Amino acid sequence: MSDTELLPIRDLQACCAPITREPIEPSNAESLARSLKALADPARLRLLSIVAAHAEGEACVCELTDPLALSQSTVSHHLKVLVGAGFLTSTKRGTWHYYRLVDGALDAVAALLAAV
Amino acid sequence: MSDTELLPIRDLQACCAPITREPIEPSNAESLARSLKALADPARLRLLSIVAAHAEGEACVCELTDPLALSQSTVSHHLKVLVGAGFLTSTKRGTWHYYRLVDGALDAVAALLAAV
Repeated sequence: MSDTELLPIRDLQACCAPITREPIEPSNAESLARSLKALADPARLRLLSIVAAHAEGEACVCELTDPLALSQSTVSHHLKVLVGAGFLTSTKRGTWHYYRLVDGALDAVAALLAAV
Repeated sequence: MSDTELLPIRDLQACCAPITREPIEPSNAESLARSLKALADPARLRLLSIVAAHAEGEACVCELTDPLALSQSTVSHHLKVLVGAGFLTSTKRGTWHYYRLVDGALDAVAALLAAV
């Protein structure tokens, strides 16, 4: 299945019951698995968490490398995965990219996993 | 970090705030990433969902291969990953293993991801 056929995580929540309420459709399981893969990395979880905790919910890539003790290229790769999966948005201002959580995206994953 | 140093998912919920409330500690990010990796597979999401929807919340491995159209050894591998990660329990009765969701394990992941 190509990426373009997979539902974005917020659409998936709109269409589907929590996985424990009724058997999840195969194509929706593919979409949810893709979202979970994007989250299933310690560096990416820390990035989401640091961005969320930052002043006004936005952080510059220049503020994210030191806390993780990773190279800027590695951090940029992880940020790109999170943007691609719909968990972060990226805005360029001046020299730097700024990152912000997408409202409701983590909640959508949580809602699909939580029991009724 | 070895597996034995990682917190089980339910202990992780007991100790930690949602990741968007405060920056997650590196070791807790490792534990949560491990749980998410176990979930981040379409076949495993479908298995959890089918087991949960089954009569009395329990399913025999013999009932799980046909719906997924996978070999029994592949299904057994996925079930083993889910048991190892604390999302399913397994009981042997007669010839077959029976699987059941661990109460609260998916809810614990959801609680760590959901916004306050």
